[in-house]
Amino acid sequence: MALLVMKFGGTSVADLERIRNAAVKVKREVARGHRVIVIVSAMSGETNKLVGLVGDAASGAEAEAPGFYDAREYDAVVASGELVTSGLMAIVLQEMGIQARSWQGWQVPVNTTSAHGAARIESIPRENLDRKFGEGMEVAVIAGFQGVAPDGRVTTLGRGGSDTTAVAFAAALEAERCDIYTDVDGIYTTDPRITAKARKLDKIAFEEMLELASLGAKVLQTRSVELAMRNKVRLQVLSSFSDEPGTLVCDEDEIMETNVVTGIACSRDEAKLTLISVADRPGVAAAIFGPLAEAGVIVDMIVQNISEEGRTDMTFSCPVGDVAKAERALEAAKARGEFNYRELDKDTDVAKVSIVGVGMRSHAGVAQKMFKNLADDGVNIKVITTSEIKVSVLVDRKYMELTVQSLHDAFELDRAP
Amino acid sequence: MALLVMKFGGTSVADLERIRNAAVKVKREVARGHRVIVIVSAMSGETNKLVGLVGDAASGAEAEAPGFYDAREYDAVVASGELVTSGLMAIVLQEMGIQARSWQGWQVPVNTTSAHGAARIESIPRENLDRKFGEGMEVAVIAGFQGVAPDGRVTTLGRGGSDTTAVAFAAALEAERCDIYTDVDGIYTTDPRITAKARKLDKIAFEEMLELASLGAKVLQTRSVELAMRNKVRLQVLSSFSDEPGTLVCDEDEIMETNVVTGIACSRDEAKLTLISVADRPGVAAAIFGPLAEAGVIVDMIVQNISEEGRTDMTFSCPVGDVAKAERALEAAKARGEFNYRELDKDTDVAKVSIVGVGMRSHAGVAQKMFKNLADDGVNIKVITTSEIKVSVLVDRKYMELTVQSLHDAFELDRAP
Repeated sequence: MALLVMKFGGTSVADLERIRNAAVKVKREVARGHRVIVIVSAMSGETNKLVGLVGDAASGAEAEAPGFYDAREYDAVVASGELVTSGLMAIVLQEMGIQARSWQGWQVPVNTTSAHGAARIESIPRENLDRKFGEGMEVAVIAGFQGVAPDGRVTTLGRGGSDTTAVAFAAALEAERCDIYTDVDGIYTTDPRITAKARKLDKIAFEEMLELASLGAKVLQTRSVELAMRNKVRLQVLSSFSDEPGTLVCDEDEIMETNVVTGIACSRDEAKLTLISVADRPGVAAAIFGPLAEAGVIVDMIVQNISEEGRTDMTFSCPVGDVAKAERALEAAKARGEFNYRELDKDTDVAKVSIVGVGMRSHAGVAQKMFKNLADDGVNIKVITTSEIKVSVLVDRKYMELTVQSLHDAFELDRAP
Repeated sequence: MALLVMKFGGTSVADLERIRNAAVKVKREVARGHRVIVIVSAMSGETNKLVGLVGDAASGAEAEAPGFYDAREYDAVVASGELVTSGLMAIVLQEMGIQARSWQGWQVPVNTTSAHGAARIESIPRENLDRKFGEGMEVAVIAGFQGVAPDGRVTTLGRGGSDTTAVAFAAALEAERCDIYTDVDGIYTTDPRITAKARKLDKIAFEEMLELASLGAKVLQTRSVELAMRNKVRLQVLSSFSDEPGTLVCDEDEIMETNVVTGIACSRDEAKLTLISVADRPGVAAAIFGPLAEAGVIVDMIVQNISEEGRTDMTFSCPVGDVAKAERALEAAKARGEFNYRELDKDTDVAKVSIVGVGMRSHAGVAQKMFKNLADDGVNIKVITTSEIKVSVLVDRKYMELTVQSLHDAFELDRAP
């Protein structure tokens, strides 16, 4: 009897009507002869509400370090939202005549590290679930996003962690497929709000999805895609609100035909910072990016110009929201004499556009085609980085939509491969 | 180092300001050198909200028996409210510099029966808590109202169950005292809304509190008082919103001076039903009250008149809300030929007034004094029942306040003993 994992996110269980709607999908799979593991998030908005309460609790008048609090207690509070939806889903399924029960993280147990607030799943012993399936249970409803640390405290997996819960269960119980029900109906060649020509993909390779997820296509939590790739768990992203098939995220080998470029991602809120005339010596990059990492600045692209007369320019990109932090960290390090630069040039009006596709591995000239296309449109490229299956460029923000639309046409992404 | 249990009800943890207010009281006890076990309820309104969600989940379009649902799932959902408040309380205490941590029912563990929705605590092993206290923990914040069944499912103890949690911890860890913080400042000789002469009691015996609790003084859950009495746990009822001492509920032996009557309870929504001319034969009482119990009618007082010529009148009282149910059950049983009666007389306009006091044991004439007092006021007594420390009468509802005020004066309850 094949086993299926079905994950419903916060918008898919936002109220009882939606929980019933999700349960109908579960019932359909049970009727097809599947055993089903359902993973549920908290009702949308609920986790934010709980996080807010914890923040308020920790910023009392007597607080010495406002905003700092015991992550174990954060987890104990924030994990409660999924307990509500898992119990409600079990009741709704039972009302439909299905043998279902809820499982809290510690009951399975979902064993995690003790990194509270961002724990990693270490193991999911399958004995308890298997025994219950053996006794006639048709559906196990699992509270997502949570687990239990070695010392028995409740942990959470970080925001979006229910996707990871779903993939981990699919891996541990060797599920046929892991269906991620969400509020979009699949993965698109690019953001449909930018071009109406964006096309829903039938299939996408894990590696491509990883690049797209980390580039700002927020459909799946990056870690869940990594975990699926490592364990060869076939993931399907589909809509809770329709009956259309979604997009299958799977091994490259399972995809027969593919375009050279599979998708185009873009990210609006980028900034480019350049340290002008840095003394170029071994270790200077470490000296610069060490303090930035300590300050929590998320550095993305890095470019170092050719050194002239022992001096160079160092350019990097980061989220716009991190610019002030970055500036303070760099000036403090300069004041401590850790490195020197003449001035700091800031450009907070840039966006990143990336083309992604496993087909690039076997096709030369893809980057060249991209650069030529931008040149033809009169778009100046500020920074370039590449990986085996991706080319990213930083451009003036006002050109972002134009660039995406133009590349979408150039690589013919509106046509199925 | 003495150990204290402090329980805060839903109104005492209704928001973060109140949680901080409660934490200040905890901090004060820690400063006095106590180890403290804090028991918290869910924020007021939260449990009702969760119960409502479960009810709605179970009344789906496909539900075969609306309102019927898996009590294990009910418990899983409804117990989540206390997880939130226990985590928040721990954070607030930590912000005040106190070593505190939250404990969920299953973490302690609070072992209960598997009677979901109304489970009983079977044991609270003290090893885990003792070890943490040994490691320097000053305050254990326990999620009230919940425990874990032998099969590892979450259980709840029934409404008001956090009082029982508090007393059970006080008993298991041999606490010096169990303080129940609530929205009233103690136990009064009678309802202060009925007479301004009502006086707060310094002390009250367990037995008296039990009679008052079951008679409608809703300050403490009856079961928690029973448990305290059995384990000789000294209970103090006091206000979260003041620093005044409350009322100590304790062993009779600890109370040196007492009035003959300690308190007067009253209950407004009573009904009196009389089956007129019932064939009097052995087993007729069982034949009548069996169907009533099956129908869920809460029968309180029962009076059987003297039998004449093999026929008798049978009178009983029940809540007004149960009258229709009682009538249907009796008529159905009559139709089945289980017993016979000429007519059913209903009086839905009655109230119950009770005087309670352990002093009655050693004083004769207390009931007589009560009856005479009512007679002097022209109040007709419809039904009388007595126990060793209580006399209850049913009177026309319009006389309830008058009767309470008059008895309060007659037994001089406004004066301290």
